[in-house]
Amino acid sequence: MSSTRFKKDKEIIADYETQVKEIRNQLVEQFKCLEQQSESRIQLLQDLQEFFRRKAEIELEYSRSLDKLAERFSSKIRSSREHQQFKKDQHLLSSVNCWYLVLNQTRRESRDHATLSDIYTNNVILRLAQISEDVIRLFKKSKDIGIQMHEELVKVTNELYTVMKTYHMYHTESISAESKLKDAEKQEEKQFSKSGDLNVNLLRHEDRQPRRGFVRKIEKMKEKRQAKYSENKLKCTKARNDYLLNLAATNAVVAKYYIHDVSDMIDCCDMGYHASLARTFRTYLSAEYNLETSRHEGLDIIENAVDNLDSRSDKHKIMDMHNQVFCPPMRFEYLPHMGDEVCQVSAQQPVQTELLMRYHQLQSRLATLKIENEEVRKTLDATMQTLQDMLTVEDFDVSDAFQHSRSTESIKSVASESYMSKLNIAKRRSNQQETEMFYFSKFKEYLNGSNLIIKLQAKHDLLKQTLGEGERAECGTTRPPTLPPKPQKMRKPRPRSMYNHKLFNGNMETFIKRKKECPYSHSGFRSTDPTCCRELYQIHQSIRFAAAGDIPCAGITGGSQRY
Amino acid sequence: MSSTRFKKDKEIIADYETQVKEIRNQLVEQFKCLEQQSESRIQLLQDLQEFFRRKAEIELEYSRSLDKLAERFSSKIRSSREHQQFKKDQHLLSSVNCWYLVLNQTRRESRDHATLSDIYTNNVILRLAQISEDVIRLFKKSKDIGIQMHEELVKVTNELYTVMKTYHMYHTESISAESKLKDAEKQEEKQFSKSGDLNVNLLRHEDRQPRRGFVRKIEKMKEKRQAKYSENKLKCTKARNDYLLNLAATNAVVAKYYIHDVSDMIDCCDMGYHASLARTFRTYLSAEYNLETSRHEGLDIIENAVDNLDSRSDKHKIMDMHNQVFCPPMRFEYLPHMGDEVCQVSAQQPVQTELLMRYHQLQSRLATLKIENEEVRKTLDATMQTLQDMLTVEDFDVSDAFQHSRSTESIKSVASESYMSKLNIAKRRSNQQETEMFYFSKFKEYLNGSNLIIKLQAKHDLLKQTLGEGERAECGTTRPPTLPPKPQKMRKPRPRSMYNHKLFNGNMETFIKRKKECPYSHSGFRSTDPTCCRELYQIHQSIRFAAAGDIPCAGITGGSQRY
Repeated sequence: MSSTRFKKDKEIIADYETQVKEIRNQLVEQFKCLEQQSESRIQLLQDLQEFFRRKAEIELEYSRSLDKLAERFSSKIRSSREHQQFKKDQHLLSSVNCWYLVLNQTRRESRDHATLSDIYTNNVILRLAQISEDVIRLFKKSKDIGIQMHEELVKVTNELYTVMKTYHMYHTESISAESKLKDAEKQEEKQFSKSGDLNVNLLRHEDRQPRRGFVRKIEKMKEKRQAKYSENKLKCTKARNDYLLNLAATNAVVAKYYIHDVSDMIDCCDMGYHASLARTFRTYLSAEYNLETSRHEGLDIIENAVDNLDSRSDKHKIMDMHNQVFCPPMRFEYLPHMGDEVCQVSAQQPVQTELLMRYHQLQSRLATLKIENEEVRKTLDATMQTLQDMLTVEDFDVSDAFQHSRSTESIKSVASESYMSKLNIAKRRSNQQETEMFYFSKFKEYLNGSNLIIKLQAKHDLLKQTLGEGERAECGTTRPPTLPPKPQKMRKPRPRSMYNHKLFNGNMETFIKRKKECPYSHSGFRSTDPTCCRELYQIHQSIRFAAAGDIPCAGITGGSQRY
Repeated sequence: MSSTRFKKDKEIIADYETQVKEIRNQLVEQFKCLEQQSESRIQLLQDLQEFFRRKAEIELEYSRSLDKLAERFSSKIRSSREHQQFKKDQHLLSSVNCWYLVLNQTRRESRDHATLSDIYTNNVILRLAQISEDVIRLFKKSKDIGIQMHEELVKVTNELYTVMKTYHMYHTESISAESKLKDAEKQEEKQFSKSGDLNVNLLRHEDRQPRRGFVRKIEKMKEKRQAKYSENKLKCTKARNDYLLNLAATNAVVAKYYIHDVSDMIDCCDMGYHASLARTFRTYLSAEYNLETSRHEGLDIIENAVDNLDSRSDKHKIMDMHNQVFCPPMRFEYLPHMGDEVCQVSAQQPVQTELLMRYHQLQSRLATLKIENEEVRKTLDATMQTLQDMLTVEDFDVSDAFQHSRSTESIKSVASESYMSKLNIAKRRSNQQETEMFYFSKFKEYLNGSNLIIKLQAKHDLLKQTLGEGERAECGTTRPPTLPPKPQKMRKPRPRSMYNHKLFNGNMETFIKRKKECPYSHSGFRSTDPTCCRELYQIHQSIRFAAAGDIPCAGITGGSQRY
């Protein structure tokens, strides 16, 4: 206990110096740490710049590849389009439209990735370079601030050292003064114990001058030493007070430095770093998000076109493009031989009975045939439904392939197994083709039936009309056998101008509608109803008359078609 | 008029044959059209396959480049991480985290584009190849159906030809029988006019046998011819009826073919084409949309990390990592010299008056200094706010660069002009650096002021405490000058075990909070409030004691740190 309490100047100074040295080491290390931090930032920023420089190159390569790809097919389309000038947009098939839009999307992606590359190079990298500059500059400035802080610490610790030394000096002097005072006191005491004997002697001998002078001398010395001691003690107290006050100030400054100033110095170093970095990353994100939005818009356009894939409309476009080929021919007209003036079925006796019999035969035959063919049609419809179900199965979702599990090696298998496994496909396809075969065989059967029905029906209807007329005007309209009949007027062809309308864009739509509405139609497109059929044929005939004219019909396909 | 009406066999047959030939030509052209259509489909499907094959290559190249890019930096990070093992996730700086996530996103994009490439190759292209097969197969089958249809047309037109020829034959015979009958009638008439004269003569001459026999002969011939004519006329009527009935049937079959059958044939050819193509495009779209979703998810993760860029938390992480360097040192303790037992400021007379005076001087000096420094602080805050505004300006939106106008050549200029124009940047940066300079000069001023304040405040507080104590216990606690004071107990260091807690993860947070709440704190981090300061210092001290121990403190940084 006493060894620790009775520390000498040198020990104390050594302790103090150790402590100060420790602090100075920390200060040096703090600068090193700050420098190291700045260096890692510079490194990070360099890495980021290098990363974006290379990514910009990759994006540009990708963009160029996509552009080249799109251009390769686009130029092909352009040249074939020039060749087939007449294929205007109105004739653009829905399937071809999808293909064109996929090419558009590829061009769009190409442009967007080029833009991305441009933003990396001319914006993101520039920002990163500026942040690097800022980091270097701010590190220097912060270090300046740090040096000022450290100087303050050196100053206060030096002051503390000084006042401590002063305290030591005065305390030493105070101790020495005290011991001297104690010495004097001891001497005085000794003198007093002597003078006690002396006093007794004095009373006896009354006058012993030299002894009295000695005592006074000792007292004087004691007083002097007391004064000296008091003076030194006061000096020591003041020095101690100064030491204690400076100690408090030093501790406060050190505490402030470690708790606030060092943090402030780092803040100075950090100034704007995170904000600028955030803005740089946000520029990157903005570019990426915008690329994505643009990509999405393009995909939506394609999706819309895919939704609008329409075989019916494509079929009409094709027929419209080749209207000369699909235009119904003129009716076969009755051509009277060598001025034969009869131009109707004659139902007078003796053929009347025979025709009547034939009519009834046709009627019963037709009834049977229609029932039979209706059965075939039902099978056909069911088969088509099965085929439709096969053909429209929703097997196109590949989202499983984009699940980001930790293991990346399973991606390939996911994509190929669940959607397009060889076994699955083979099964589906053989099933589909089998159904297709059955459909075609049934369709041929149906076709035979309906052809027979349409022929018999035509004859039946003509006979019905004739016999009806015959019954109504048995004697009125039929001429006497020997007299040549009053010549009936040949059906006059309608005036041409009436039919100068669009071919399939005009009446075609109307009769397509009729066909759909026709209750006998199969799959909405086949009819055994002769009334419907005849009516449509009339329309076709009139179109035919228009189309067969040797004057170019400007109205038919917008002026580009010749006949 | 008469020339058209009196058409002969050959003319009629020629007309008919022209009409039939026209139809046959159309049928041939229809097959050609169907074939051409199938060929364009095959071509389109080939183009699509070729497109996706090449795009799969491009995607794979892109994927590989991205992977290489990510790997290059990731391996660098791994090696540096091994070197700095102790940098656990808890020490991952928010800025470095963003960088790692950008690398993750690059890897993710790489994987997704590889998946895209895989789906193109193993799904989309396969589908397209199958559709090609289908188109070829269905064209063949539809052509078979078409041939059947055409055969039917040939059959009915041939039949029409036959019945027309029959009608012509019987009509010719009927005409000849009629003319023969007319001849006989003429002869009879001539005979009658002669016999009219004869009858007058007969009445006169009564018997003229040979003349009567001739008349009967003529009558017989006429009857015979009449019978022949009637027979031929019936035959002709039947033939004409047959012709007319067949004409109706033929027209009905032709009409049916042109209106329904040809359309049905095209439908057979189209069967499933649009549906299968749609499914293929939807597979492509599904892949693209999923890629986009994955990309978006990745970007959202980065955006979240950017939102969480936090300089304060990074600073604490750095200080935590280097806690030895930033740990506050031990307080400078009062070290009594040579067993000096006084360890407090002595405020007895004669120093009391002086200390009191000094105390009041400090008080007024502090008041002035604080006001002055508060002014500096206000300027500092305002400057920091200006800097903050500059550093957080929202200049990162690059959506304009992704606007798809028709003209693509303006993209570059948009990206570089509006966001990162050289002039704009230079202006902003010089402005920013000027403000920064001003901030630093003000900060130094503030630092000087606050250092002075903290020192004076420490002395002031110590004096206040001493004088207060002195007033309260003027005679009680102060020892008489000559007697050495009763030794005061040295402040005992607290037991070490108490401070075996985490360093900055524990108390650091608490005092960071306190610092924020400290009303004197500048920017939440600077304080001139000595109470707050002292309190924090106490905590630091205790940490210091723990950290300075020569036994490794397992609790401080999770066991990996040594002292």
